[in-house]
Amino acid sequence: MEKVRRNERLSAMMKILSDSPNHIFTLSTFCDMFGSAKSTTSEDIDILRIVVKEFGLGEIETVTGAAGGVMFRAQVEKSAAREYIQGLCDQLSGTARVLPGGFLYYSDILSHPVITRKMGEILATEYYDTEPDFVLTMETKGIPVALTTANALGVPLVIARHSSKVYEGSAVNINYVSGSSGSIQTMSLARRAVQEGQHCLIVDDFLKGGGTAKGMVDLMHEFGVEVVGTAFVMATTQPQRKRIAGEKSLMLLDVTTNADDTQTAIVRPAAWLK
Amino acid sequence: MEKVRRNERLSAMMKILSDSPNHIFTLSTFCDMFGSAKSTTSEDIDILRIVVKEFGLGEIETVTGAAGGVMFRAQVEKSAAREYIQGLCDQLSGTARVLPGGFLYYSDILSHPVITRKMGEILATEYYDTEPDFVLTMETKGIPVALTTANALGVPLVIARHSSKVYEGSAVNINYVSGSSGSIQTMSLARRAVQEGQHCLIVDDFLKGGGTAKGMVDLMHEFGVEVVGTAFVMATTQPQRKRIAGEKSLMLLDVTTNADDTQTAIVRPAAWLK
Repeated sequence: MEKVRRNERLSAMMKILSDSPNHIFTLSTFCDMFGSAKSTTSEDIDILRIVVKEFGLGEIETVTGAAGGVMFRAQVEKSAAREYIQGLCDQLSGTARVLPGGFLYYSDILSHPVITRKMGEILATEYYDTEPDFVLTMETKGIPVALTTANALGVPLVIARHSSKVYEGSAVNINYVSGSSGSIQTMSLARRAVQEGQHCLIVDDFLKGGGTAKGMVDLMHEFGVEVVGTAFVMATTQPQRKRIAGEKSLMLLDVTTNADDTQTAIVRPAAWLK
Repeated sequence: MEKVRRNERLSAMMKILSDSPNHIFTLSTFCDMFGSAKSTTSEDIDILRIVVKEFGLGEIETVTGAAGGVMFRAQVEKSAAREYIQGLCDQLSGTARVLPGGFLYYSDILSHPVITRKMGEILATEYYDTEPDFVLTMETKGIPVALTTANALGVPLVIARHSSKVYEGSAVNINYVSGSSGSIQTMSLARRAVQEGQHCLIVDDFLKGGGTAKGMVDLMHEFGVEVVGTAFVMATTQPQRKRIAGEKSLMLLDVTTNADDTQTAIVRPAAWLK
């Protein structure tokens, strides 16, 4: 095998590591790939660690021990996260996106690949330490950001449905009370989707009363799964009291009615981003 | 600004380019970022081009002209694509995943971040030339792979719903006939989600009769949008005649009933991957 230069090794390693975030690669993987010595590979990693830090691209971490190696984490610094979310808030605030009934149109934000990737990285940064085994979301609008969060955490995504489908196999159904409307709804999850004893991070697009979120927590209890956190793209400031506690939302939404009966959305970054 | 070494520049550029696939960066962006000359940056790009090619990580392309620059494409070679899809087919084939009614359980595959990224890259490779403005999918199961395809193509994702929702604003609803069951269903898309004259790539998880796919094509016609392609994760071999034509699926599914009344799934890569 022809010798691969450091230049080439570093850029290939950067791509491979960042394509599988939070996944430990052994040094030997790269030694074999590039035909280089362990000491050389270690030096390569030291350089990469400095580069990602310097350009705010994330973090390269070395894990010691028998199952050790190196991994990339899409760690977003608090100040960069706040600035990014502030930019989204500026886009969403105002009258243009308010729909009849005081709803806010932000489906485009919720399904944009670049925006959801960044939002997923910001959420993952907060939950790396909780080491979830999977991310759970409830169909439909939260799926993209739940996927990008799962990607950053290096874990699978599990999607709960409104009803059980023939192509999901036997399922656990629960009923829950919608926090805002008070109506009874159903949530369903395939039996084989998760295993007892696992740890789960809940990610969804919107938190108002917290009924759906509470439903997801209850669903996980049915499966004997521990919920390590609940995260949302947007939460309303009203009602202040939600059916769940300890959640982290990226943005807070207030809709005020003006004198001329139009409505204005005021969207701001959540307090924990300050 | 301290001078950034080539080592460092290359790995940072690799990460930045691959984080925004199919997006053109001007040379000046990188010159400004690293304080390096245009000629130096050009050399950097030449090195990166060779690296990604050599390690099968995609392609770095230079675009000439006024709006020119450099971009990364997650181009997957046909042989690598076939091998990857064959691996998935091996996982899905057999009796373990067949559900009552001959349905195949593969929701875990459809929502796994790493698998959907690779599938999205394979699909994007086929449709780079068609230059879609967005990817359209129908809720729910196709959303992750539609998102990763949109990400690879560097375009937004648009999600059609089964019914119009208050938080989507005014919407266009169409009725369509389900290809497999023959029942009438509704599909809805927010008016502001797409614009007349745009080009759209349809991506979904499953193609049987093609009724839903045909519905999506009709929906796009309602919006004055041209459909440049239809792509699916899985297509059934029966019925052979679908309500749409020219589709590309990654996998083909056959379910056979055995003498003991159990059912076996035979999943294989589609012919165009050969």
